[in-house]
Amino acid sequence: MGKGPYRQLQSNRITPNNVRISFIGAGNLATRLGIALKAAGHEFVQVYSRTEASAKSLADLLGAEPVVQPEAMLSDVPLYICALKDDALPEVLKKIQVGNGILVHTAGSLPLDALKPFAAKTGVFYPLQTFSKEREVDFGTLPIFLETKDKVVLYILKQLASDLGSAIYEISSAQRLQLHLSAVYACNFVNYLYTVSSDLLQEQQLPFEVLKPLILETAAKVQTHAPSSVQTGPAVRFDRTVMDKHLKLLDKHPELKTLYKDLSQGIFKRTKTSKK
Amino acid sequence: MGKGPYRQLQSNRITPNNVRISFIGAGNLATRLGIALKAAGHEFVQVYSRTEASAKSLADLLGAEPVVQPEAMLSDVPLYICALKDDALPEVLKKIQVGNGILVHTAGSLPLDALKPFAAKTGVFYPLQTFSKEREVDFGTLPIFLETKDKVVLYILKQLASDLGSAIYEISSAQRLQLHLSAVYACNFVNYLYTVSSDLLQEQQLPFEVLKPLILETAAKVQTHAPSSVQTGPAVRFDRTVMDKHLKLLDKHPELKTLYKDLSQGIFKRTKTSKK
Repeated sequence: MGKGPYRQLQSNRITPNNVRISFIGAGNLATRLGIALKAAGHEFVQVYSRTEASAKSLADLLGAEPVVQPEAMLSDVPLYICALKDDALPEVLKKIQVGNGILVHTAGSLPLDALKPFAAKTGVFYPLQTFSKEREVDFGTLPIFLETKDKVVLYILKQLASDLGSAIYEISSAQRLQLHLSAVYACNFVNYLYTVSSDLLQEQQLPFEVLKPLILETAAKVQTHAPSSVQTGPAVRFDRTVMDKHLKLLDKHPELKTLYKDLSQGIFKRTKTSKK
Repeated sequence: MGKGPYRQLQSNRITPNNVRISFIGAGNLATRLGIALKAAGHEFVQVYSRTEASAKSLADLLGAEPVVQPEAMLSDVPLYICALKDDALPEVLKKIQVGNGILVHTAGSLPLDALKPFAAKTGVFYPLQTFSKEREVDFGTLPIFLETKDKVVLYILKQLASDLGSAIYEISSAQRLQLHLSAVYACNFVNYLYTVSSDLLQEQQLPFEVLKPLILETAAKVQTHAPSSVQTGPAVRFDRTVMDKHLKLLDKHPELKTLYKDLSQGIFKRTKTSKK
């Protein structure tokens, strides 16, 4: 058990019961999760995607049947993992009969209740990572967040997560949405700042290469220190001389200028708060 | 030689001539650079800091004499490395006689010319990294940016950088300022986003721990891919359903809300540009 209002669960990797699974969706997350679950010994029945190439490509990897019509999904599979975009989910799920099967989704931003109209046994299986189809992911290093109201579903999802070697947490839909928001800051917005820095270097014909050690070290530092405790840069001391030089360079990028000012203000305020 | 208007220099680690060095400044960068240069066999004469404890602490590490009065700095040392804050630099340097010595600074945001009033032989030695006094830094993985108008100075600075095993670039003051600005985005602003994500997690009593694998993977991805090519998240497709849920959670943080909107707009626009 962990502290706080979430539960950190212990692995139950005791009974190597293979689960038969169908995938609804064949994007980045489905691809990486499917490969990892197959490697852990689970079996795949069907893979649905409205794009034939995607359905076929993941189905081939998993030894499953590709499906492009939701109505063609079999209803006798024990577990359906739905990894569709939030908006597409209801449209597709209302055409799929899951019988007595368990239906889980993998989204940070969707409540458990979103599955209620489509199955009796539902759950959430949310692995927190940024996934690309081509890039290997070590599930053993990442956390998986579970939610369900059903004890049998919890048992099975816990076993799947244990098979992947992941840290397992049980959290609420509200917590998961906030977690998803935090991840947008820590991953999506961070990656955008990398893009901005790369674009700025290019203006002076300098290679992005030179920033890579700094980027790695910045991420490595917060593995062992609270990020607020290792904040550096001109905004910490609100060093106007340096900041004005930077702002002048951004004259031709009004949006980056606004971002620079807002982020610097944020750093300065947050630094004052920490010192209190 | 590299491509572009900068020069990437080859190492000249042939003559193991040890250089006698005095440090002006004893902060994070001076500490880590001093330790690395000492390990490479160089010798230290004096360390100046207006704070006695800082001067003593670094001087002890380097086997040098601590100095708190700039006037007490000896003028017969071959190399003076100045690692003061930009604003403090002129005040301190006008009180230090460097004789025939070489005077270099280590700042991203200061032009080479800032040293002109204080020495005949000047240069810049700018290692690009985020430094903490307590955290070891492998200079072999980071780039050092040199600037000087003097061939002898260039030879010596190149040798120092070679001794540290760093990649060596020769760039102009204008390029260095832009590089510094890029580093503010890629390091200081990124670290602030880590802080924001940590604060948001804390509101739901979730541990920052759970984001660490995501943070590492996000930094690792751009070591091999252009950041614009691996951008993910709701803003890429301007997914209003998800973004509105996130914005609602930020109702009590108007500044974070503005940041969320501006960063999302930035991602969306930049994604459209890349696809053109």
